[in-house]
Amino acid sequence: MHEPFVVVFLGPLGTYSHQVNLPASNQLLPVADARVSDAVASRAAHAGVIPQENSIFGSVAETYDALRKPNVGFVQGEVVLKVQHCLLAPRGVKRDDIRCIKSHEQALGQCRGFLAQYFPAASLEKMPSTAAAAKAVLGSCDSAAICSSICTTVFDGLEILYEGIQDQDSNYTRFYILSATRNTTLPPPTYPIPGQTRCLIRLSSVSNDASRPPLIMQLLAALALPVSRLDRRPQLESTQLFQDVYFVEVAREDTDHSERWILGIERAIENVRTVGSEAELLGIW
Amino acid sequence: MHEPFVVVFLGPLGTYSHQVNLPASNQLLPVADARVSDAVASRAAHAGVIPQENSIFGSVAETYDALRKPNVGFVQGEVVLKVQHCLLAPRGVKRDDIRCIKSHEQALGQCRGFLAQYFPAASLEKMPSTAAAAKAVLGSCDSAAICSSICTTVFDGLEILYEGIQDQDSNYTRFYILSATRNTTLPPPTYPIPGQTRCLIRLSSVSNDASRPPLIMQLLAALALPVSRLDRRPQLESTQLFQDVYFVEVAREDTDHSERWILGIERAIENVRTVGSEAELLGIW
Repeated sequence: MHEPFVVVFLGPLGTYSHQVNLPASNQLLPVADARVSDAVASRAAHAGVIPQENSIFGSVAETYDALRKPNVGFVQGEVVLKVQHCLLAPRGVKRDDIRCIKSHEQALGQCRGFLAQYFPAASLEKMPSTAAAAKAVLGSCDSAAICSSICTTVFDGLEILYEGIQDQDSNYTRFYILSATRNTTLPPPTYPIPGQTRCLIRLSSVSNDASRPPLIMQLLAALALPVSRLDRRPQLESTQLFQDVYFVEVAREDTDHSERWILGIERAIENVRTVGSEAELLGIW
Repeated sequence: MHEPFVVVFLGPLGTYSHQVNLPASNQLLPVADARVSDAVASRAAHAGVIPQENSIFGSVAETYDALRKPNVGFVQGEVVLKVQHCLLAPRGVKRDDIRCIKSHEQALGQCRGFLAQYFPAASLEKMPSTAAAAKAVLGSCDSAAICSSICTTVFDGLEILYEGIQDQDSNYTRFYILSATRNTTLPPPTYPIPGQTRCLIRLSSVSNDASRPPLIMQLLAALALPVSRLDRRPQLESTQLFQDVYFVEVAREDTDHSERWILGIERAIENVRTVGSEAELLGIW
């Protein structure tokens, strides 16, 4: 008998992270916030879905903060999801009944134009998540929630009044698929980008001369790989003020997952270490 | 008669931004959020104080988002301020009277150890800012606020019960001093870092072949300046998904503000433009 393949995501049930469904996963578990990577790292789950970046709001600081920890798991893929906000109300509630609209602050902001046009008189209520908003309107006769359409399957009794109500149509969120170890086999399909091979590397300065840590450009020169994304966060335990850890995503335009590509990355990481940086491979996909 | 020199900061009165006092400023005006750079850019103020980075929480996304706009002003200096939280209560309120402690969520989190040790039974209330918390406890007989000591001068009737109550002693915030134009003369003292010359440059890809924008490492190679900080935000108006704007801070270990240094920066910016990036000098100090 197969053990169930456990995937954790940023809960509660019904969030956009929930929508990034790994089709073959037997068991989907919502967990709080930074716990996704903790659950994966501690092997409580085989894989996790973590939001990496939104096309409007940028990098997700909490995700990069979690990726600063040692033994954080291994990124094996990515999923880009269109954020498609819907207006959901309890069955039977009509447009003209709605006096109050609940959602996460960001979602309310992203639907400002729609709300001004269709519900100029409704009061707007901020909730901790879009899914919490959906749950909160259950049984109400005058409230609606802005959330993902998946909430109609998570919460019984809700229906979609409007779909795709966000002001900007190009609102996408990119997720990393994190596995427990580099050797965890993810159920198919896997999640590379067509025609591309990527990897994620964490760099942090560890110069003996703390007043002169190697500059990020020296580290990049030593790495000598085609960097496509670069993010900076404060070091978790820094001996000096404003010391950084950098997250470097590398993109190559082919789907060569051969030994040679992996060896090339490992050699690049060794090069960075020789110029005085801790360097850690956090993912290949 | 002198015109008053107007400095705007992230309000309300009593915030940590308020503490970054430009001594010679005749008029200090609190404004909301991203409006600091707007007020400076529109010449409603001569200068502004904007939080750039915190040593624990990292870069301030709102500040970098504001710096994406055209004609955003010009950074002429920096100030690093130690975040020194105090417990303030209305005069006469004693330690044993306190049942409720109000502050901004981050400040409550940063004083968790102190609160558990001294006020394990007090209820904690989140407020929109530390200064709003100070204002809210005025006249109360059982509440205290965690905020900056400057609140004792802003709000009459408050006194300091405890000083330096943050769990981590190395909590610093770094601010940019933004002037209306490159030629605005700031009142002394100016705010360079001793022994260092810095500049801030904004880079964004504008490749004709949108599918192959130049990589950040190509831009840095063309720039060929000693980059000390690198931040990434989504482009304000991007034609393509996940297109970035980078903010590059350059630090040089001397205090050479000569024509030659400035010409060198301008030449570096020209070099970046030739490899297909918009490049804009946002500050020198």
